[in-house]
Amino acid sequence: MKRITVLGATGSIGIQTLDVIRLHPDNFAVHALAFGRNIEKAVPLIQEFNPEMVVVQDDHVKDELLKQLVNYEGEVRSGIEGMVDASIHPDVDILLNAVMGSIGLTATMRAIQAGKTIAIANKETLVTAGHLVMEEAEKYGVELLPVDSEHSAIHQSLNGENPARMERLILTASGGSFRDKKRDDLVGVTVEDALNHPNWSMGAKITIDSASMMNKGLEVIEAHWLFGLPYEKIDVIQHRESVIHSMVEFVDRSVMAQLGTPDMKVPIQYALSYPDRLDLPKTKRLDLEEIATLHFEKMDFERFPCLRMAYETGRMGGSMPTVLNAANEQAVQLFLDGRISFLDIEALIGKALEKHDKIRKPDLETIMEIDKETRKQVQTYIN
Amino acid sequence: MKRITVLGATGSIGIQTLDVIRLHPDNFAVHALAFGRNIEKAVPLIQEFNPEMVVVQDDHVKDELLKQLVNYEGEVRSGIEGMVDASIHPDVDILLNAVMGSIGLTATMRAIQAGKTIAIANKETLVTAGHLVMEEAEKYGVELLPVDSEHSAIHQSLNGENPARMERLILTASGGSFRDKKRDDLVGVTVEDALNHPNWSMGAKITIDSASMMNKGLEVIEAHWLFGLPYEKIDVIQHRESVIHSMVEFVDRSVMAQLGTPDMKVPIQYALSYPDRLDLPKTKRLDLEEIATLHFEKMDFERFPCLRMAYETGRMGGSMPTVLNAANEQAVQLFLDGRISFLDIEALIGKALEKHDKIRKPDLETIMEIDKETRKQVQTYIN
Repeated sequence: MKRITVLGATGSIGIQTLDVIRLHPDNFAVHALAFGRNIEKAVPLIQEFNPEMVVVQDDHVKDELLKQLVNYEGEVRSGIEGMVDASIHPDVDILLNAVMGSIGLTATMRAIQAGKTIAIANKETLVTAGHLVMEEAEKYGVELLPVDSEHSAIHQSLNGENPARMERLILTASGGSFRDKKRDDLVGVTVEDALNHPNWSMGAKITIDSASMMNKGLEVIEAHWLFGLPYEKIDVIQHRESVIHSMVEFVDRSVMAQLGTPDMKVPIQYALSYPDRLDLPKTKRLDLEEIATLHFEKMDFERFPCLRMAYETGRMGGSMPTVLNAANEQAVQLFLDGRISFLDIEALIGKALEKHDKIRKPDLETIMEIDKETRKQVQTYIN
Repeated sequence: MKRITVLGATGSIGIQTLDVIRLHPDNFAVHALAFGRNIEKAVPLIQEFNPEMVVVQDDHVKDELLKQLVNYEGEVRSGIEGMVDASIHPDVDILLNAVMGSIGLTATMRAIQAGKTIAIANKETLVTAGHLVMEEAEKYGVELLPVDSEHSAIHQSLNGENPARMERLILTASGGSFRDKKRDDLVGVTVEDALNHPNWSMGAKITIDSASMMNKGLEVIEAHWLFGLPYEKIDVIQHRESVIHSMVEFVDRSVMAQLGTPDMKVPIQYALSYPDRLDLPKTKRLDLEEIATLHFEKMDFERFPCLRMAYETGRMGGSMPTVLNAANEQAVQLFLDGRISFLDIEALIGKALEKHDKIRKPDLETIMEIDKETRKQVQTYIN
């Protein structure tokens, strides 16, 4: 029985994580649930899973929640301190971190220091603090298990392999909502257009990131840290069917790949059940006869400047990816709020990167500071 | 350093095995080489690898070989007894068995009993004697490492996995030389047509078997024995590009696959280097951007009756697969000799299967007897 703390319990990944836990009551149990302020979604989950601890964004949400909870005898906490305590409790085996943004960073670092297995669904953890996280993970002998479908595919492809024999990682990209549009066609696209992802049903932020290809860029940086390969050995290939979730080429030219229907429960469950697998009877089986054709295309870095910027900032390292990520988050929010156009996203990120003086090896505090500062900066560009 | 005995050293697999050994002199060495009668091909290999023992088909070939060997101080032997001694010598770590036909069976069985790791490139070993071979392998704790690209792909996909979590094996089939022909178009096809395989360069027998789909049928039976799944959990899918070499579906709907360019050195080397990998710098890297499209089609059992017969005899078990295999070998030889038409192959096999009274659990001697008897039978059908 593995006891799991879920940070970001009411988000898309959090909900599906609870679906997986629900399917396997003999294998998994919830220790704690953390969410921001979606009390409506959270209350039935708290009643169902009856966790030892619930963590919310702030004391206001906490008071509101306490009014609505009936017969709940666990603890209710708030803020980052609450998230940390929910993550490092001796009963916790796995921390599944699916909060959005850099807010998940502190809990992950503290959980690593407490020797917990980390299931990472929070991109910022590795994008902004990969050097710190990997250093601590090695120091404390902790396993970082990816939840993203691409990194999970690579993780599965590396199962039983000697990591020294990796030659190249090949991340696949569906191409997102705008894959069949030229750059000129992107002028004037709407939020609604961008949110219409062809293959995966995900949250708004990540769907916009898929359309701009920033999502793949952030995944490249994550892959660099998770699997320890230099950027020139991490390729991205466009694969519109999203059937092959990613691949590893080895020194003997053998390529291992993980395939499947697009269902996030598969990589979530793999992270929780690893190194074993458990059944997922309701997930659709891959039917290649029905799909019939798989397509592969070269990525166009001119067409997708966000991907190019991600490689560039990844190579530069230091504090640059923090700026990339924070500027992107801010810009995407502005786009979702209808304040800027789709193509402004990349422009604002480019501007933020240009203005930043790189810090070579930022500590956690500096990362948080740069993150906050960058968001403010981006806001000023449009005022 | 692993010391290897190669049975079938002058055949297509044997030659490529020696290519692999030549590439990695620090990892592999030849203990013994066995071949039939191709002295011309064998002499330079014997001079180069200087094995402890050489085994040939019979004493006539042996005398001929001795005349041509200069400065060779090892032993020259002949026949099955020689093959057995070359395989069970205490210095041997791996027996790579790539002889054609049932002649390789005795050496494999004896090598298993001597605790040797077996790299199987000889289909008959498992098709005709799977029940005996697997029983002995389990008894002596011996690993059977597949060399066929399909079974190697499955073996690689199972790396680090819990075998109990396998749900389904999916063997891919290029479709062979006649994949774009209808059944009616097969009347009157020539040996030359059949030998023109679209993807792989292989020996004549296996190329004909690819055209008739018997090769895939034999592979299904092999897969049944190697990986222990019932026939209803072994699927074949037509995949004309031969890029995905085969797949495993697990209980969580995750599908693991091995991909690559068609180069038999990859699976051969994997069997020798397993569980590690070594580099293969001259093998072409897989370039999915260049290939651009992968196709998948349902297998048509009406179009390919040899595949249907293989499933049927596999399910019936006992001595039936021995009859299938022997009848096929004889019929293919008759086709290659220009004595029968391509469609006669399946007809002769069907007739041989129909006439045979199944023996439930044949021993090695009985298998050999049935094999010989079936070949004779098939010969009589055309006289």
